[in-house]
Amino acid sequence: MTLKKLQSFKARTGEPLGAPLLATSAEQVDAAAIAAADAFVSWSASNGATRAALLSALAKALEDDRDDLVALADEETALGPIRLNGELDRTAFQLRRFADMAERGEPFDVLNDPAVAGGPPVGHPAMVRQRVPLGPVAMFSASNFPFAFSVLGGDTASALAAGCSVVIKAHSGHLVLSNRVAGLIPEVLKKMGLPAGLISLIQGSGTDVGVRLLSHPAIAAGAFTGSTRGGAALQAVANARPRPIPFYGELGSVNPVVALPGIVAAKGAELAATLAGSIALGCGQFCTSPGVIVLIDSATDKASNDTFVELFTTALAGQKPHAMLTPGMRQAFDAGVHHMVAAGAQALLQEVGTAEAPHPFLAQVDAVNFIARAELREELFGPASLIVRADSLAEALEVLSAVGGSLTVTLWGAEQESDDNRALVRGAMNIAGRVLFSGVPTGVAVTAAQQHGGPWPSSTQPMTTSVGDAAMDRFLRPVCLQDAPAWLLARQGQPC
Amino acid sequence: MTLKKLQSFKARTGEPLGAPLLATSAEQVDAAAIAAADAFVSWSASNGATRAALLSALAKALEDDRDDLVALADEETALGPIRLNGELDRTAFQLRRFADMAERGEPFDVLNDPAVAGGPPVGHPAMVRQRVPLGPVAMFSASNFPFAFSVLGGDTASALAAGCSVVIKAHSGHLVLSNRVAGLIPEVLKKMGLPAGLISLIQGSGTDVGVRLLSHPAIAAGAFTGSTRGGAALQAVANARPRPIPFYGELGSVNPVVALPGIVAAKGAELAATLAGSIALGCGQFCTSPGVIVLIDSATDKASNDTFVELFTTALAGQKPHAMLTPGMRQAFDAGVHHMVAAGAQALLQEVGTAEAPHPFLAQVDAVNFIARAELREELFGPASLIVRADSLAEALEVLSAVGGSLTVTLWGAEQESDDNRALVRGAMNIAGRVLFSGVPTGVAVTAAQQHGGPWPSSTQPMTTSVGDAAMDRFLRPVCLQDAPAWLLARQGQPC
Repeated sequence: MTLKKLQSFKARTGEPLGAPLLATSAEQVDAAAIAAADAFVSWSASNGATRAALLSALAKALEDDRDDLVALADEETALGPIRLNGELDRTAFQLRRFADMAERGEPFDVLNDPAVAGGPPVGHPAMVRQRVPLGPVAMFSASNFPFAFSVLGGDTASALAAGCSVVIKAHSGHLVLSNRVAGLIPEVLKKMGLPAGLISLIQGSGTDVGVRLLSHPAIAAGAFTGSTRGGAALQAVANARPRPIPFYGELGSVNPVVALPGIVAAKGAELAATLAGSIALGCGQFCTSPGVIVLIDSATDKASNDTFVELFTTALAGQKPHAMLTPGMRQAFDAGVHHMVAAGAQALLQEVGTAEAPHPFLAQVDAVNFIARAELREELFGPASLIVRADSLAEALEVLSAVGGSLTVTLWGAEQESDDNRALVRGAMNIAGRVLFSGVPTGVAVTAAQQHGGPWPSSTQPMTTSVGDAAMDRFLRPVCLQDAPAWLLARQGQPC
Repeated sequence: MTLKKLQSFKARTGEPLGAPLLATSAEQVDAAAIAAADAFVSWSASNGATRAALLSALAKALEDDRDDLVALADEETALGPIRLNGELDRTAFQLRRFADMAERGEPFDVLNDPAVAGGPPVGHPAMVRQRVPLGPVAMFSASNFPFAFSVLGGDTASALAAGCSVVIKAHSGHLVLSNRVAGLIPEVLKKMGLPAGLISLIQGSGTDVGVRLLSHPAIAAGAFTGSTRGGAALQAVANARPRPIPFYGELGSVNPVVALPGIVAAKGAELAATLAGSIALGCGQFCTSPGVIVLIDSATDKASNDTFVELFTTALAGQKPHAMLTPGMRQAFDAGVHHMVAAGAQALLQEVGTAEAPHPFLAQVDAVNFIARAELREELFGPASLIVRADSLAEALEVLSAVGGSLTVTLWGAEQESDDNRALVRGAMNIAGRVLFSGVPTGVAVTAAQQHGGPWPSSTQPMTTSVGDAAMDRFLRPVCLQDAPAWLLARQGQPC
């Protein structure tokens, strides 16, 4: 069988970038999964200091190669050096943060539950609750974060900290960069005397190498950041295995912003500018891009909401997004715009832009139609947003309920306690992983309290997060030891 | 449409128990889901004291009706008054334990993550991580625990403590008892001024009312204890919804016991008696019944293992299990025995028993065949076990690996640290939620460190437990509040 050839392209011009690369063969995918299972045996028993040393060394390797990596990433993705340097900083920060957690022993936390004399239900044997790493993880890189949700991104960092090995599927949108980053890893592993199979890269189509990897019996979990369609397909693969495994998919999200009448009237111009910047940032290629703006039109507030819409339209028209990541995404954006207009949204901005860089798109619809038409609630990946005009707070709550699942909801103007604001907060918390009360949802802090994941379609596992400290929990399964011998208890939560 | 009629039977005689009951209609299922969604609004905002008061009052209602409940349960299930009184104690204990957790404020735990000045990745806004209850939960009662995993069982208790409302599907194996227990609830709710829709019961076939309930848009999660086939079917229903929801299924488990040569030689008779008692207990109708006994036959140990098998066969032959829960389960047991023999297991005990109460079944197979034939690794629900003879520790580890997922693994004789014992512990922890080093896996303590759930097929969500304090976590989804206003922070984790 001839191996498929994969060609990367320069995002700004569409020209080929570098020579074609060979797709990973089925046998090579299997070999990577088996090597990851072999590496898992020793890595799962490694101590926190060893895990911290690897993660820190990987962070340093990224930083040492910064100039070349950023230049290459910029050519391949058009995201620009400022953003890409910032993203590399964030990626190194993430690696070091999980290094710190491993060093502090968080993967080895133990809950001691001493024996209680007597019969059940009160009496019980000596029990200890600790956690074991799941096993080799299949990691699917995202298009839109070539560093932070890719080869050495958050999923890899949190899985390694937990004691898992990883096989990473490169994203076709930054194949050359992914190979360059992956090329830094063997040297780091070798210096530490760690097996090469601990972290490996595969490439090719998702339906080909991706499905084969996720179906391999040695793989114990999947982690994915990408589209709802792609994530749902992989979730089905994980479920269809003879032994289904956890699949952590971070999928689409429309991130509603509810701007209440008071703040719209008082600060409309400022909010319009902030929102326009957030929507166009990175050409709108963020899972937290604000895709739905909800305004509440009581009789007295309609006029100031109309003014806000004008200001917002003007502010967004003034944004000049850069090229999208790939021609496919650029085409999907146009298709999404047509789809939304066909579904009844009234376009407020409709210039097309260039073949690589779209013009921002803005449309408006009333809440009744938004609630009635599911097509209007689908994520439109790129610099686009839909204003939804509700007649009342109750209708705005129905809009949130129709969205159903989102990474974020932003509530502007809920500073004072009231029945209305409590209802809004309840409605927002019921559908989102993160609720913001100021600022914009783009920019996801890597911190202790972060929750990046919410009800479907924003996540396949809404109880988990793919950003922040709790991301490590996805890869550690609780195990209870009953009447454990002294030698095992002396390991203090460290797997054998 | 005429409603289906449901008839319950006396387990010991097969005679009808009581008059036929009407199956819940589709409209009534929908009404129960909608009433649960209505009740969720206030219940999710209730404080810990209110939740504790309800859970404690339910425990007391069970205890106050103890004599009649146990008598009825005994007639319907044949489990016997000693076991049933113990199970009622455990059920009340569970309710009060979750009451205490609610009262201590555990559902409202808050992680405060104050703002850090400066740009990303180090700087970030003020963030707070807390949890919200998922919403109305569809609860599927188990056949084998008419109190503890049924109407007011652990799933209901943990969901209510978390702030969720529940719609419970009664199990056909104890329909009259389920109605009697459910009949205690409205009075308790009314006295506390709580809506009747907070806890309701439906009944009928799983493919009928069960699927309709789990598919209802108002339902936010499912919880199930039962067979692998039934659980897998319901998991598929939860996944096929327009908006998939978490489904917590506790399915089949074979619970391997690895008895190492040293302890077999030293204490064979005692272990044989213990094991036989555990297998026949409750007619083997426990998800933690030891279904696979692994012996390691080195040249020097084969003889004492053979002696143990003889002792064990005799001990098990002496057990007289009571009637099974239903005629269907009794027939499934015989079918499973035939299936196992057809797959190559050599029967050591093969009397059939009566039409209601089976005789214990014991068979033996070598590890090579056990590993090769998936049929031998399926749970046989009832008083049965399969001895697997391995030639080496390595082969015993392959046996565990072939089992793949189990609620428990028991390791007898691993008291001393050694490479072999470390490998065994690793092999056990890789596939199980609980690893025991003495005693038998039947008897699942309701305590802080318990983990009742492991890799597929023992759970659909191996990171969660359906017994013990962490069971409440299944119904609480993390939410991050960013720049939350003072009035909201003052609620200290209490939903609006």
